[in-house]
Parts: sequence; structure tokens; C-alpha cells
Amino acid sequence: MNPTLEIFSQGEEIVTGQIADTNAAWLSQQAIQLGFTVTRHTAVGDKLDDLVGLLREIAGRADCCICTGGLGPTSDDLTAEAVALAFDLPLTFDEIAFAQIRQFFTNRNRAMPESNRKQAMLPKGAERLDNEWGTAPGFAVEYGRCRFAFIPGVPSEMQHLFLEKILPTLHQRFSLQPEQLVTIKTIGIGESAIQERLNAVVIPDRVQLGFRAGPEEVQTKLLFPADYPKPAMSTLVNQVAERLGNVVFAIDGLGETAGDLVSVIDKLMSGKHTLAVIETASHGMLSSLCIGRDWLLSASYEQNIARLGQQPSADNDHLINTTKALAVDLQKSSGADIILVQLYTGDSHTLHDKNRSIVVYTGLLNGERFEQASHSIGGSIKRKQNQAALLSLDLLRRYLQDKL
Amino acid sequence: MNPTLEIFSQGEEIVTGQIADTNAAWLSQQAIQLGFTVTRHTAVGDKLDDLVGLLREIAGRADCCICTGGLGPTSDDLTAEAVALAFDLPLTFDEIAFAQIRQFFTNRNRAMPESNRKQAMLPKGAERLDNEWGTAPGFAVEYGRCRFAFIPGVPSEMQHLFLEKILPTLHQRFSLQPEQLVTIKTIGIGESAIQERLNAVVIPDRVQLGFRAGPEEVQTKLLFPADYPKPAMSTLVNQVAERLGNVVFAIDGLGETAGDLVSVIDKLMSGKHTLAVIETASHGMLSSLCIGRDWLLSASYEQNIARLGQQPSADNDHLINTTKALAVDLQKSSGADIILVQLYTGDSHTLHDKNRSIVVYTGLLNGERFEQASHSIGGSIKRKQNQAALLSLDLLRRYLQDKL
Repeated sequence: MNPTLEIFSQGEEIVTGQIADTNAAWLSQQAIQLGFTVTRHTAVGDKLDDLVGLLREIAGRADCCICTGGLGPTSDDLTAEAVALAFDLPLTFDEIAFAQIRQFFTNRNRAMPESNRKQAMLPKGAERLDNEWGTAPGFAVEYGRCRFAFIPGVPSEMQHLFLEKILPTLHQRFSLQPEQLVTIKTIGIGESAIQERLNAVVIPDRVQLGFRAGPEEVQTKLLFPADYPKPAMSTLVNQVAERLGNVVFAIDGLGETAGDLVSVIDKLMSGKHTLAVIETASHGMLSSLCIGRDWLLSASYEQNIARLGQQPSADNDHLINTTKALAVDLQKSSGADIILVQLYTGDSHTLHDKNRSIVVYTGLLNGERFEQASHSIGGSIKRKQNQAALLSLDLLRRYLQDKL
Repeated sequence: MNPTLEIFSQGEEIVTGQIADTNAAWLSQQAIQLGFTVTRHTAVGDKLDDLVGLLREIAGRADCCICTGGLGPTSDDLTAEAVALAFDLPLTFDEIAFAQIRQFFTNRNRAMPESNRKQAMLPKGAERLDNEWGTAPGFAVEYGRCRFAFIPGVPSEMQHLFLEKILPTLHQRFSLQPEQLVTIKTIGIGESAIQERLNAVVIPDRVQLGFRAGPEEVQTKLLFPADYPKPAMSTLVNQVAERLGNVVFAIDGLGETAGDLVSVIDKLMSGKHTLAVIETASHGMLSSLCIGRDWLLSASYEQNIARLGQQPSADNDHLINTTKALAVDLQKSSGADIILVQLYTGDSHTLHDKNRSIVVYTGLLNGERFEQASHSIGGSIKRKQNQAALLSLDLLRRYLQDKL
């Protein structure tokens, strides 16, 4: 039997519904991949009695509990106090925690407000979880049969602390038999189209097939039992990936993790190529997704497509010619070896109307070689922006992987 | 005292983290607007014992509970059975429910699978909640002090059933006094600095002060009881806003809702001004935040600050002069009446290093008038990008509101 794990979230913003508890979902996925059975999520606000009662309950029924939130500097951040009361571990000043908190402010050239001192008060005997990504350290304690870890609710800090400080200790403390998850990531194809393509593939009973459609990618998930033989696993995964074709941009779970589309492109571009971009429908999103990637030399967004030379009555040929002419100019002026130019049919009304689609054209120029792709994109203006950015970048990915 | 309400979600897809529990967030917001205090969210999977135990617990501590999920036709849909066991209300065949389920299939020209018959079995004495938007009816029961409503987990059905069948009965059964929430939204100031500024303001005991720090803004929240007099409310809110100063970009809850920073700017720009931008540290994010805003004519991102004329050894004066020169050029070429130019100190290494800060300079040119602002920004590269975009836009907001 897998050890059981609960997620406990603290924060008025969750119980009052200002935010959905995406931390609980993320942590559950991680825990399941590790080999835990996640039995319950609980979220409460900032009532001390509720927190104390719940911590004691969980200590009596779960093997592990990950708690997020309530570690901030303000008076409604009560987690440490609740732990102290629930498990009779009085709060104690932690000098190292305090030094780290002060350093956080020093690094930002800011004076540490007095209220942040509170964050250095940890339950007696707690193991400090150093937080290099924010002000407050997390901490871990054991009580009853349960190992508790307390970490901040800010998603980036929460994820860092879980992956770097908690995950390694879980492997030491629990005998975990993780199932093996392989995720095949695609872009430019919907969930039902994927399902249709996979009808021809026989999935053994012991393997669970699942899908997850998000704004960035559609994931096809294959969950294998812990003892499933690796070669049979690879064979099945390759069969699925082949059926899906060049829409597959990455496969996670067979070896190294590829990350998102931009990470995949980053591996192909870094130190080999540079890029300059004109984007229209994606409205800065393409450039924004490439933050921190040195190969993106410049990007410009232009609202008025006419200023780029596109006629309102543009047909396919005209669009391709305009894209190509813009790419040739940008190749000369930017100094980048690869150029992406994005145009789209339709105007500001089409872009805003969630019931109408735009067609996004992307041209790619590298030396003399010119490639192009077009995609129809519907939905809200944000969806159009996001898909336009990703589909233009995906032309670059396919070009670099020789999968046009 | 407000009646208390809990949200109880059933489904393996929630405890395993395949989806975040957005139903719980939506229902909580609704409940709070009605005048409930939401005390807890709980999610469990499809273990019958867990469900029975939890239902009994909730019956002993909450006045109302909205339960979602577990009403489907399959064997892992256990909610009705759990209610029958927990509250000793044996499942009974409901002919009207069965007729509705059959009708659902008839309307879609499909034969009703035998498994759907199960959905017509309701706990004895339960009040049926007719579901015109899906197959399964919901139902309501009372046990102990608690009124329970059970509805499907499909968000559209859940929302319809809540709004049309549950909400009206809540008004009849509970004496509801909705509290009044005012949110003061700031940018460019941290939570602890806000708290320090507010030390001088006397917050009456009946008013709850809270904070929420997100990547886009920091919110200061004042929650007033239902009977709190409006003039006293306005006075307190104005006092708080005045203490906070020009970092306040919007106040929600006194009249119309202002939305986020870009929405506030949109109201000030639309039909009056146009904007062209050069962005550096924000790497397309500024442009991307303005998706669908017709006043943004063009934006360009340039990685190599030297190409923009900035010297590596730039001092303050040099930065201001470079910013100004770029703004003047862009004013001529873009046709926009307001120009924003963003530069920053440091290089690609400083940008990547989460322990080092950059100083972002923004210049704004409108006709002959030139304004500038600078901010030190630390943290991860994504945080620097986001803050650079928002702080540059905030200079525009303060300029337009005459709050420099």
C-alpha cells in the first residue's frame, strides 16, 4: 500500500474563492508521481482554532502532509503559531532564518520591516527549509505518524521549496514505489483529434491513458505500473508518438525532462542561432515567452498591419509575399540569422470577437531558405494571442528539428 | 454572526490534481456575496468511508454545505450512497428523476444506458433539485444543524443548479447579511511597507483589514459589516488610500469595479491618446499585457541595449538622456502622442541572477513634456520582467491621473 498524503492549504484568499487552489493540484500531481496516495485536500482561512484542530486531525490519519500558506509577516499569518499550539512546540527564534530574511531585503536594497522578524519564529525542534526564492523559510515537523512540511503559498516559492527541499527527504523517509508517467506533449492539435489518431494503438490494460488540454499544450499521458518493463514502455510510447506525428514537440518521462515549447527551442537555438521577430496577433506574447533567452535579439509588435505593407484584401499569395519581404528587410537590419514574421487576416474586430477566427501566417527565413505555416485560431482575444505566439514559435521548432 | 458554509468536493480528478478545484472557488465567492462565512473547503476521492465520515463531521459544525461531484452513473460515483449511510436515509427510486433522465437521452436521440438508472436513486426524503442542463438531478437534505445541497461537478451544470435552484432557497432558510468588501489596489509597494504606512490609521474593531500580494498588484482589503454606514465607510477608505499615496491605482467596492492596472489605463487612454513603446527588461510583457487595446500602436523589444545608444557604464544622467533621445525619435516615427521608453542598468547576467537587482528607468514623452521614473527590481527573471512591465505602465497611469 502506498503511504497516504494530504494537502492542507491555509489562506482567506482560498476559502473566500479569490483564487482557486492550484497549489493543491500541483502538489497532488507531484505526490502521486512519487508514489503517494493523495487522500484529501483541505483549505481553511485564518482562524487559529480551525488550524490547530485540523493539524491534530491530519496527524492522526495521514502519513504525510504538505501545508501551504500562512507563513507571511502579517498578523493573519498563523501557521507557525498553530503548529506550536497543536503539537506543543513553542515558537523559538531561529537566528539563521532571521539572517536569511534580512539578506533577502539587503539583496533588494530595501530595509527589512520589523514585521518580517515574525517569520524567523519557528516551532521548537522544527527542521528549517531554507527558502532562497522569497522571504520566509518553510519548516518540517513530525507528529504522530505524520510528517508535515510547511511552505509558503506563493506558487513559485512553493514549487521551488517542494522540489529542492522536501522531495529529496520524502525519498529517504518513505518506501515509495512510483508509477511511471510518460507525457507526450503536442501543440496545434486538439484532444479529440488526438484520441481519434490513437484509436489504432492498442493500450494494454495495465497502462492508463489520459489527456490534459491546457492553453500551452495538449498532453497525452501514459501511466505505467512501477514494475512495467522499460523496453515495452519505450515501444508503446514511440508507437503513440509516431501516430501523433510532427505535432509532438517533447516527450517527458523516458529520460530527461524537455520542459515547455520554449525550452525545447532553447536547446536547439542556444549558441547556434539568433532570432529576430515581427509579431502582430500575438501582441508581444511571443517575445514575452522568450524572456531570458539570449538568442532573441529583437522583437517588434505593430498594430497597424497596413504599415507593414499588408493590404486589407490580402489573399494567401499576397500574405506570403508580404511576410517574405518583411523577413528579408529584418534579416538585413537585425543581424539575426533566423527571422520570424507573423501576419494575420482580419482586423481588430475579428481579433476581439470570440465567435470569429483569424488565420495567422508565419514566415521563417534562414539564409535563402523560406518556410511558412498558417493556422486558423478562434476563441477569446487572449486565446488568439497565446496560440498565435505558440504556433509561430512551433514553426521555428519544426524547422530546427527538420519536421516541417 | 453570519451562518457558516463549507464546500465539499468529491472526485479523484481533484485529489489527484488533474484539475484545480475551480468549483470551490466559484461557489465560495457566491456564498460570501450572499452573506455566508465560508469556513472550509474539503476534497476527497471516491472512498465511501471517507465520504460518510466527512458528511457527519460537516453536519456537526457548519450551517450549510454545498457538495459537488460524485453524482454520475458509474460505480465510483458514491455521493448518494454516502448520504444514505451517513444520515440513515435509505436510497429510494425517484420516478420523476428517472423520467427526467430518460428525457435527457430522448432529447438527444440516444438510448439511455442502464447504468444511468442509478442516478434516480435519491436518499429518502431528499428534496430533488431538477437539472435541466445535464443527466443527473441534484438533491438537498438537512441533517443536524446543516443544510446540504448535492450537485454535479461539471462546472456549467453546477453553476446553473446553484444559481437557479439553490440560491433562492438559501435566502428563505437563512437570515443573510452580506458584508461589504472594499479593495484598495496598489503597485510598486510591498505588503509590509503598506502595513507600516497604515499603522497610523485607526481601523475600527468591526472592520477587518487584510492583504493580498500577487504578482500584478498588492491588495489592501477592508471588510465592513452589512450595517456599517456608507459615509463612515467612505471616510475610512479615503483615509487609507491617502496614507498609501500615489501607489494606489484603483479602489474596488465603493462604486464601479476598476479592474487591473491595464483596465484603469484603458479608461484614461481610450479615444484620447495613443502609445508607442520601446521595452527592454520587460521583454514583450508590456505589449502583451495590452492585448486588444487599440491605443497601443507599436512596441519593440531590443535585447542589446548598446544598439539603443546606452553605454555599459551608464550613469543616471546618461540613462535619462538616452531615454529622452529614443523617445523623441519614436515620437516622430510612430505617430503616437505618448511615448514610453524603458531602459535598465545591468546586463543579461544581472537579469538572470535572482540575487541581483536591476534598476529600470522609464521615460514618458507627451508633446514637450518629459517625465521619468526609476525602480529597483529584484527576484527571478520572470519577476523582473513582470514588474518592469507594470512599473513602466504605472508611470503612464500616474501621468494620466496627474499623480506623479
